[in-house]
Amino acid sequence: MAAEEDAEALAAARPLLTDLYQVTMALGYWRAGRAHDHADFELFFRRCPFGGAFALFAGLRDCVRFLRAFHLRDADVQFLASKLPPDTDPAFFEHLRGLDCSSVTLRALPEGSLAFPGVPLLQVSGPLLVVQLLETPLLCLVGYASLVATNAARLRLIAGPEKRLLELGLRRAQGPDGGLTASTYSYLGGFDGSSNVLAGQLRGVPVAGTLAHSFITSFSGSEVPPEPMLAPAVGEGPAVNLPAHVKVWLERVCAHLGLGVQEPHPGERAAFVAYALAFPQAFQGLLDSYSVCRSGLPNFLAVALALGELGYRAVGLRLDSGDLLRQAQEIRGILQSTAARFQMPWLERVSITVSNNVDEEELARLVQELVCVGGQPRMKLTEDLEKQTLPGKKAAFRLLDADGSPLLDLLQLAEEPSPQPGQELRVWPRGAQEPRTVRPAQVELLLGLWVHRGQLCQPLPSLAESRAFAQRSLGNLRAAHRRLQSPEQYQVALSERLQALVGSLSTGSSL
Amino acid sequence: MAAEEDAEALAAARPLLTDLYQVTMALGYWRAGRAHDHADFELFFRRCPFGGAFALFAGLRDCVRFLRAFHLRDADVQFLASKLPPDTDPAFFEHLRGLDCSSVTLRALPEGSLAFPGVPLLQVSGPLLVVQLLETPLLCLVGYASLVATNAARLRLIAGPEKRLLELGLRRAQGPDGGLTASTYSYLGGFDGSSNVLAGQLRGVPVAGTLAHSFITSFSGSEVPPEPMLAPAVGEGPAVNLPAHVKVWLERVCAHLGLGVQEPHPGERAAFVAYALAFPQAFQGLLDSYSVCRSGLPNFLAVALALGELGYRAVGLRLDSGDLLRQAQEIRGILQSTAARFQMPWLERVSITVSNNVDEEELARLVQELVCVGGQPRMKLTEDLEKQTLPGKKAAFRLLDADGSPLLDLLQLAEEPSPQPGQELRVWPRGAQEPRTVRPAQVELLLGLWVHRGQLCQPLPSLAESRAFAQRSLGNLRAAHRRLQSPEQYQVALSERLQALVGSLSTGSSL
Repeated sequence: MAAEEDAEALAAARPLLTDLYQVTMALGYWRAGRAHDHADFELFFRRCPFGGAFALFAGLRDCVRFLRAFHLRDADVQFLASKLPPDTDPAFFEHLRGLDCSSVTLRALPEGSLAFPGVPLLQVSGPLLVVQLLETPLLCLVGYASLVATNAARLRLIAGPEKRLLELGLRRAQGPDGGLTASTYSYLGGFDGSSNVLAGQLRGVPVAGTLAHSFITSFSGSEVPPEPMLAPAVGEGPAVNLPAHVKVWLERVCAHLGLGVQEPHPGERAAFVAYALAFPQAFQGLLDSYSVCRSGLPNFLAVALALGELGYRAVGLRLDSGDLLRQAQEIRGILQSTAARFQMPWLERVSITVSNNVDEEELARLVQELVCVGGQPRMKLTEDLEKQTLPGKKAAFRLLDADGSPLLDLLQLAEEPSPQPGQELRVWPRGAQEPRTVRPAQVELLLGLWVHRGQLCQPLPSLAESRAFAQRSLGNLRAAHRRLQSPEQYQVALSERLQALVGSLSTGSSL
Repeated sequence: MAAEEDAEALAAARPLLTDLYQVTMALGYWRAGRAHDHADFELFFRRCPFGGAFALFAGLRDCVRFLRAFHLRDADVQFLASKLPPDTDPAFFEHLRGLDCSSVTLRALPEGSLAFPGVPLLQVSGPLLVVQLLETPLLCLVGYASLVATNAARLRLIAGPEKRLLELGLRRAQGPDGGLTASTYSYLGGFDGSSNVLAGQLRGVPVAGTLAHSFITSFSGSEVPPEPMLAPAVGEGPAVNLPAHVKVWLERVCAHLGLGVQEPHPGERAAFVAYALAFPQAFQGLLDSYSVCRSGLPNFLAVALALGELGYRAVGLRLDSGDLLRQAQEIRGILQSTAARFQMPWLERVSITVSNNVDEEELARLVQELVCVGGQPRMKLTEDLEKQTLPGKKAAFRLLDADGSPLLDLLQLAEEPSPQPGQELRVWPRGAQEPRTVRPAQVELLLGLWVHRGQLCQPLPSLAESRAFAQRSLGNLRAAHRRLQSPEQYQVALSERLQALVGSLSTGSSL
């Protein structure tokens, strides 16, 4: 987990991971004498992904790493020079060579926080030119991580807290790091682990995996294991020839199920035997390479029962195609009858895993807007009202009920006093025509200080800690907001002063 | 472009970029004495993405790099040991330590080829255990690259050959490498370039970019450029104060357009002036930060005309929201009338760029199946007939008409003689009940030998060469197949011998 081991993270921290327009704009600022102007950027999103009423914020650790490593090498500056006009003042490139984030300050939600539309995820302060160059990489690092974590949290809500959820998407991932990011933040969002070994090695994500169809179809049944003998799980009993025992059990199982003993595929059975010899304590079957009921299941049962005789307990079976629910129900029934028939009660409770495509219905857009530069609040007013951005540097609070459930998120100007627990205050829910009053039992400051002028201010939690934090936060969210379909929108409100400022700026724009 | 510069590529070449089930299966093979069995894998897809009738194959260069670098370090092996049963035979880990791809052979379509369902993209041959470990990374490297390239090719077909297409997706990309991969393969598929600077630095993708809303909204209009003077583009004339000239031109433009001179936003104009001072030869405007017609366009025209007086020609303008087509048409009309009014005819032809979300409608699945191990053809028969895989090691040919347009792709057994130009042959189109005859004017061998027992056999083309190859290939494809909506499916056919083998295996399975 050491950072120096994580070549992917180092690669991601390359300062040229940005859009060329950020660099041309940097030259524009520099030429306008504004490189050192103080700027505050906020990053937020406008709509929750997947039609839900919440998102999880993730990617903070990557942002912190990026900021702390930010520095343009000579080769980077030379490359940029090759893409800018040849008569560009060389002093601009000298300026680029000296850049780092030692004047940059980062406030952010804790990793794994619940996040709502319009509430800043990150606030970045520093010299305008540097902060502009950070925009694309920070968006890139936060957007996908938060999307994946939110998706995982939704699937966790569907599955409930007990079911085991594994992410197996590497082979279909958006390139190597797309896969690494997806595995990491699926875990943060609530999955139990991933098949991605590199995510385990580099990020400490629990990894899991058994076998795939290619293993099974690679056996014809004529293979002879070099070491077919298996000793009992406990005790001093003699080792037995596993394939021979499986053959005996196959006849019993087929008689019980009313199948011909020739029906189950011999290659599939040889594959199961090979896997059982390698993993007697963790035998699992993948049943749908041929026919689930006429081949996969009887072969699995024969191997599981032969292992059972030796004191080993099969761990589970997996289905990867067809009508998963119907098959799982049928199989559960057969496991029960087989367990009773052969007096192996543990067989009833063998886990059934199903795998298929986890479709993320759409990729939500996490967008960011420049909010405030040089202390002069300014609103981005476009002809698309949806895109209005709140002006000024803001503070954000989560107001909570006595039971810890969030009531609303409050945005106010940074200089306003904090809301106090137990005190009533009047706020303007976004989109509402009228103010409302609210009396929070608890108040949380949402945006913590993580990096102050380039220095880390507090230790970053581990991935597992952030995962636990996310699950606790989700647990406190009211069911109406947590609902995945047609949820009630969570309220984000403005303080009276912020509301008044928005009103005055909006009026000004229609002149 | 040097490989050692490309830290991302090195990171992507990490051997643990694989699924844990590949490793458990490797142990299963090893325990079964099958680690050195000869295996052939083929990678193909079943359906073209985006509802089309073609895909572009991409990712070969990354696969070749992965194979050549493949080696498990001690730390990798130790990590794997920590995830496998503690009683695993240490000899297995010794075997892993000695692994490389020196016995692996790779055949593949050329990078940028047209690819069709069921026709192999890659054929990988070598020892079973190694080849199994390669499955996930090769799928990961080819799948996303091909998907992005295909998407780009479709957008290029929509846009036609002349329009400039830029990929600007980094800020919304699936993590840093997801972005780098997308930028690289959008270019290969037919885009002109990307905003992603790292893709330019590491992969040679042409990069482009100008300015974003944040630049414009960061100016209030009260800024004073430290160097407001601009010299004429050519000749010896005196430098002029650009902001002052812009002010004069703004009055003329507003009078021409019937706008009050106070309406255009002064901050937007200050931003345009700052950008023009930095890029007088390449001035562009982004018009929709405030109101396009009442602010963005008059401000742009004032700056463009002031530059025009000095002999500079504005490059273009950009729209990023609203009804792009309608606005572009209106603006073209205003450019024409303004060009006529002020006798600056070049202004008529200023380019109008529109940017908005390029929605990839769905992520297609590129899947792979184990086809043949140990020389024994075997078919993966599942209860889902869609998933049937063709048996045996195959050769693939593209049969072409006299005008170079592809007629069909032919799959046959590797040992069959190649089809000959001008000779009639009988083939079985997939899914058809009857054979057909075809007389190709030209025959192309589809799967070239790229890596033979670990050694590169022919130089990989450059990214730009592959891009040109893709465009030529697409140009030769019949319009009916190239059509994006409801295209005619391109025929993939089997030789008579392969068809007979499929028939015998299918029959065998129903015993």
